[in-house]
Amino acid sequence: MYPLLTGLRVVECASFIAAPSCALYLRQHGAEVIRIDPIGGGPDFRRWPVSAEGHSYYWEGLNKGKRSIAIDLARPQGRQLAVDLITAAGADGGLFVTNFPRTGFLAHEALARRRADLITVRVAGWRDGEAAVDYTVNAALGLPWLTGPAQTPDVPVNHVLPAWDLLTGAYAAFAALAAERHRLRTGQGQEVTIPLSDVALACLGHTGQIAEVLEHGDRPRHGNALFGAFGRDFVTADGQRVMVVAITRRQWTGLVASLGLQPAVAALEVSLQQSFERDEGLRFTHRDALFPLFERAIGARTLAEASAAFDANDVCWGRYRTLSQGLAGDSRLSLDAELFTHLQHPSGLSYPAPGAMGRFGGVPRLPAARAPRLGEHTDEVLAQVLGLSAARIGELHDAGLVASPAPVPWKDPP
Amino acid sequence: MYPLLTGLRVVECASFIAAPSCALYLRQHGAEVIRIDPIGGGPDFRRWPVSAEGHSYYWEGLNKGKRSIAIDLARPQGRQLAVDLITAAGADGGLFVTNFPRTGFLAHEALARRRADLITVRVAGWRDGEAAVDYTVNAALGLPWLTGPAQTPDVPVNHVLPAWDLLTGAYAAFAALAAERHRLRTGQGQEVTIPLSDVALACLGHTGQIAEVLEHGDRPRHGNALFGAFGRDFVTADGQRVMVVAITRRQWTGLVASLGLQPAVAALEVSLQQSFERDEGLRFTHRDALFPLFERAIGARTLAEASAAFDANDVCWGRYRTLSQGLAGDSRLSLDAELFTHLQHPSGLSYPAPGAMGRFGGVPRLPAARAPRLGEHTDEVLAQVLGLSAARIGELHDAGLVASPAPVPWKDPP
Repeated sequence: MYPLLTGLRVVECASFIAAPSCALYLRQHGAEVIRIDPIGGGPDFRRWPVSAEGHSYYWEGLNKGKRSIAIDLARPQGRQLAVDLITAAGADGGLFVTNFPRTGFLAHEALARRRADLITVRVAGWRDGEAAVDYTVNAALGLPWLTGPAQTPDVPVNHVLPAWDLLTGAYAAFAALAAERHRLRTGQGQEVTIPLSDVALACLGHTGQIAEVLEHGDRPRHGNALFGAFGRDFVTADGQRVMVVAITRRQWTGLVASLGLQPAVAALEVSLQQSFERDEGLRFTHRDALFPLFERAIGARTLAEASAAFDANDVCWGRYRTLSQGLAGDSRLSLDAELFTHLQHPSGLSYPAPGAMGRFGGVPRLPAARAPRLGEHTDEVLAQVLGLSAARIGELHDAGLVASPAPVPWKDPP
Repeated sequence: MYPLLTGLRVVECASFIAAPSCALYLRQHGAEVIRIDPIGGGPDFRRWPVSAEGHSYYWEGLNKGKRSIAIDLARPQGRQLAVDLITAAGADGGLFVTNFPRTGFLAHEALARRRADLITVRVAGWRDGEAAVDYTVNAALGLPWLTGPAQTPDVPVNHVLPAWDLLTGAYAAFAALAAERHRLRTGQGQEVTIPLSDVALACLGHTGQIAEVLEHGDRPRHGNALFGAFGRDFVTADGQRVMVVAITRRQWTGLVASLGLQPAVAALEVSLQQSFERDEGLRFTHRDALFPLFERAIGARTLAEASAAFDANDVCWGRYRTLSQGLAGDSRLSLDAELFTHLQHPSGLSYPAPGAMGRFGGVPRLPAARAPRLGEHTDEVLAQVLGLSAARIGELHDAGLVASPAPVPWKDPP
């Protein structure tokens, strides 16, 4: 955690990845985040991956450092408490992150009648407000037809990374600060709506793929080959797999030199009357001529030999590993780095958890904090933010409108 | 473009996706961005996809609305000009976005001697500063072993989306505003370093995958099935493919109802003595029992029948299309929406380009602007930001230290 946004108070009422990760980034950069959940947990409270006992690693990963209040959101009195929290006074408050529908009791217009300078950052699925996830957006945008072995028959191949969700979360955090900067100067709040499908579509546009498809039609499947430059997986003499990429001129000349392929590549350039060094695109269009040279050269070297040659020539490459192999065997992925804090989590398990993804040189990095237990800060938030008395808070508990965690034994970290 | 960050001046000296998209987001939300390129273009100037004439759609997608200055960065005098621009005075200036190495003439420490409150946002590859791209990071983190058909033999399957690059760009824009908010309050600048590999690793941690692998070992390949809930691709009676997902209880009950599968699912629940409605994880662990029910039900319906039933029951689903089919056939992906502006680009081609990915309700959306031609604003930037005289600018041109585009005919949009 970096103390950059100190004092800023964010209220989150959300589930899954995009909106919770937006609030997580705000939290990990110094803001206070109060997460409102329904009593018993929202739809992401048991989302996989889970521990052997069914505790969600996902939930406790995405809610680190937040304060948790559990409210019965099905009843009007509970909804009013949520509205009160979202619109509570304070110059640095009034920042609300959600994926709830734009109609209903968390509609921005209704909230803004209580606090005119409210900023609502609302993540949506499709542009029209319908539900969407990465998988359904990707299906509509053609990515599963580009993924997978080139010889794959006519079936789509999903990729497993919730990329748009993650991207939407980071962009939402940026959008929140952009709106908040505007509010600091003008006093004006507003609603920001971020459809997952617009994020995906815009990114395909930003990287040239919309222009490409409008001009050239759909891109075919290229298997494991990088599009538009040199890159593919290769197998070493000892059966290890490596991904090798050469986009820049320096990466290309380094790669060719590392494998002693200058004469073979030069001969190919002479026969084609082209320069691979000058034009990265030629390395792609002539990949069927180039790949066999690299297959043979890498296939003649053990992983140890190839990696030594690659590293001596600043080649951009990576060894294919499983996640557990990567974490254990690659020092650049060590969980002992300052990015991680070893924590005991609500699941009861202890494991390293990542803090802020960037390194800020001007402020100290503070340890990451664990996720709350559901409703852990219910009383504290009601007292501090809404100024409710202990008696009033007790009434809310008695009426079942708010909840705190059951007093299960909680082992403090050693 | 939204006028939110009006007045903020950003200088970019970068290539590829992450750092340029960071500056693009700042630009599309109102900041001024000056992009410094070497004369003739940086390593991304001809990056694919490209037009038939070799103009990069990628470059003109990632640099929309920026001002371009072309400088000979190989010579000390050219480097000094870049340093002068990065550290130029002005309360809202001094924000620098780059992917150049942290050593060398663009080292933060050296720049900060010229402007103490400078904010440098530096994107890196690996944590140790070595070059990395999505493909090599993914190989190290095991994603290619999770991607692709479950029956795929022991080969990795790359996915084609530069997800970490895109995410790093959005997070970098957030980090820039967080650092700038801190500077507004304290006067203090700093360097922010964002390694692509740390972004990837942190996101696996945030979504629970590090805890999962430490406790349970590596996740196997699940093909097109969603992990941890119900989801997969299915084929309709008329041979169309759909992706169907049910994470929430409502999505599940809607899906089951839409296909008339209540009796079959209820019978399965009785035999298993479990409730799929109450536990999304069971929909995953028992997928081999569930999938055949859905295969038969969806396989018995045409796409028209299935889609009508899905939509009537708020099912979360998507049809697999190619990108061109999606853009042409799905109104939610229409390029005529306010997200897009039809522009003539430096390639000479006209096509719709996306603006800011979010919708801001409190300020007007202004049209997106095209990318510059390389060096289009060289003279303007030297005069406005550095206050150089026309004579001095002429000397710089004569010495080959700066360049403007060749006076090729430029067709103004109609």
